[in-house]
Amino acid sequence: MIRIIGFDADDTLWHNENIFHQAQERYRGLLAKYHPAAEVNRALFATEMRNLGRYGYGVKGFMLSSIETAISLTEGGISAQEIREILALGHEMIAHPVELLPGVSEVVPALARDHRLLLITKGDLRDQERKVAASGLAPHFQAIEILSEKDGAAYERVLRRHGVAPEEFAMVGNSLKSDILPVLALGGAGVHIPYHLIWQHEHVEETPQDQPRFRRVERLGELPPLLSTL
Amino acid sequence: MIRIIGFDADDTLWHNENIFHQAQERYRGLLAKYHPAAEVNRALFATEMRNLGRYGYGVKGFMLSSIETAISLTEGGISAQEIREILALGHEMIAHPVELLPGVSEVVPALARDHRLLLITKGDLRDQERKVAASGLAPHFQAIEILSEKDGAAYERVLRRHGVAPEEFAMVGNSLKSDILPVLALGGAGVHIPYHLIWQHEHVEETPQDQPRFRRVERLGELPPLLSTL
Repeated sequence: MIRIIGFDADDTLWHNENIFHQAQERYRGLLAKYHPAAEVNRALFATEMRNLGRYGYGVKGFMLSSIETAISLTEGGISAQEIREILALGHEMIAHPVELLPGVSEVVPALARDHRLLLITKGDLRDQERKVAASGLAPHFQAIEILSEKDGAAYERVLRRHGVAPEEFAMVGNSLKSDILPVLALGGAGVHIPYHLIWQHEHVEETPQDQPRFRRVERLGELPPLLSTL
Repeated sequence: MIRIIGFDADDTLWHNENIFHQAQERYRGLLAKYHPAAEVNRALFATEMRNLGRYGYGVKGFMLSSIETAISLTEGGISAQEIREILALGHEMIAHPVELLPGVSEVVPALARDHRLLLITKGDLRDQERKVAASGLAPHFQAIEILSEKDGAAYERVLRRHGVAPEEFAMVGNSLKSDILPVLALGGAGVHIPYHLIWQHEHVEETPQDQPRFRRVERLGELPPLLSTL
């Protein structure tokens, strides 16, 4: 019996990866005279992974890694004006309006009537708080948890803090790696709603097998009738 | 009767502002051929304040504002190599060892025997978590609260979340603005322990007047005997 539902935020409740996707397209354009797109992608991702421990997730780390990669790929040839454009790109990402995904504005309030809802996200503290506020969804959530990582230990701490048993908990999100697999491992339920884009770091090949508490749906509207089966 | 003690972290439990201070000294050195130190300080602080809403507090925002200021002050004349040095400066800040302030390693464990301790800090999520872990102090705290802002509303939420009445709460910290004034306004007690450096943004001129629950001490070792008087 599911009593508590955890929702991922980025690409589950609102669009996010498309903003990174567009920013990276412009970033590749900026560097196009130096390197082909595939090389820029590879180098940027390598920088982001190298910096993940020190920066964590979010736009600011993306901006810093983008600047570092641009300097390195151009062997110092990039101009200050081009770096200014990378900063401006980041500012636009931060200022981007929050666009809810289909069904969210109906399903979340409806579920909040009979369930305790937790919003569980990772990223920049300030940036995630801004998006939560702009989404208008905050009143439906009992708590907003902004974490630096979403792994088994992090979910365990959140469930303990809220006095939630894994049996009564379902996590809903677009990332198998961050939203579903660690929760299934704890004995919770996981409902995967893929987004059409996924950051390479979140990508996992395998769909969970032989997991009676795993479901995959196409859109959030399919979630409510599923809950009683988990 | 104080049952719960909130501790600020940066410059209260461990050194922090000295790291920013040293970084800014090197930053001014980097820009010395373009502008005098006072002008660099003024411009950097103005950029940080303009970006505070979008970046929040912490090292990554400082790095991004430093790069933006350097480009602007040099009218685009700064080289990619010099921007690389700013990035390296930030990486050193993030990798800097955590150095506890005098008395912390004795007083915090001693107070934890008879009180619930909360660590209440603001800044980059990942960076603050790293410092908490490196400090070795985490086991003494019932909870670690990393906030994007430390104002009255934020303290109210923390106290409510932990079921703490302001009468039984004392906050200990180096910033009148972020640690003391909002807590006094809620009816809690505030113990100010100045650090020898303070960021301009945290500076307030006035010491609280006619506040029976306000104290100022020179070092943390003076806190325990004070608590029964608050």
